[in-house]
Amino acid sequence: MVDILHRIGIEGATPDEVYRALTTVEGLAGWWTDDTRGSGGAGGRLEFRFPPIGGFDMEVVEATPAERVVWRVADGPDEWTGTTIDWELRQSGDYTIVLFKHQGWEEPVEFMHHCSTKWASYLMSLKSLVETGKGAPAPRDVQISDWH
Amino acid sequence: MVDILHRIGIEGATPDEVYRALTTVEGLAGWWTDDTRGSGGAGGRLEFRFPPIGGFDMEVVEATPAERVVWRVADGPDEWTGTTIDWELRQSGDYTIVLFKHQGWEEPVEFMHHCSTKWASYLMSLKSLVETGKGAPAPRDVQISDWH
Repeated sequence: MVDILHRIGIEGATPDEVYRALTTVEGLAGWWTDDTRGSGGAGGRLEFRFPPIGGFDMEVVEATPAERVVWRVADGPDEWTGTTIDWELRQSGDYTIVLFKHQGWEEPVEFMHHCSTKWASYLMSLKSLVETGKGAPAPRDVQISDWH
Repeated sequence: MVDILHRIGIEGATPDEVYRALTTVEGLAGWWTDDTRGSGGAGGRLEFRFPPIGGFDMEVVEATPAERVVWRVADGPDEWTGTTIDWELRQSGDYTIVLFKHQGWEEPVEFMHHCSTKWASYLMSLKSLVETGKGAPAPRDVQISDWH
């Protein structure tokens, strides 16, 4: 089992503000993909689509306000199904620190390398959304390679 | 042992061009840090500094033109010392694909989460340098958090 790990700091933001960007459709659509539907609270289900290449369905396993959000991938690419995406939030001075883990990959395949870099890019989109009001969700996401 | 993995595609570039950006002081200074010294060929040693917070000394373990570069961290933060940084290059259509691995971390500490995101940011700087002639090396690097 191998994991994707990241850490960003969102300046001038509270953990509550970041939590909203991770648990509301409006927030999620502001940094990950325009085509976001569902319910981001504990026990909810979220559908993220990236036309024309598919997407992910997430079960919200945990949603503790201002502290932690955990998703289980219920549907999506084979490599993602059953993996877990874990967001930990905490205040540090003027920053909200986000510790991100995408855990449970079976093998460090090339697609995992791609997803690691792409997650970093989307985390920077989340940072930008909360700091400035403007993220870079799909289809206006930063292109990192021939795989988008 | 846990690894940082990334994948980018550099458009309109040959593996030779990317190899030069990974093995010459001019190339490395164009995307990682202005303060780069040493020799990037096989058996060489490179010194990367990020004033005022320190830096890294790398031994060049392998440098196979247009294919692969491997560095061993000879000096730097405790968590980095003895780890390995592996760059694989290959052509795919109009792109050069870079598979990146920073291997041999003993523990998935918070600093590793930070370095994973920061590496993604510097890989995008490498992509930009080769595609456009202009990267974002330190001290003009993209700030991702309170840890820079």
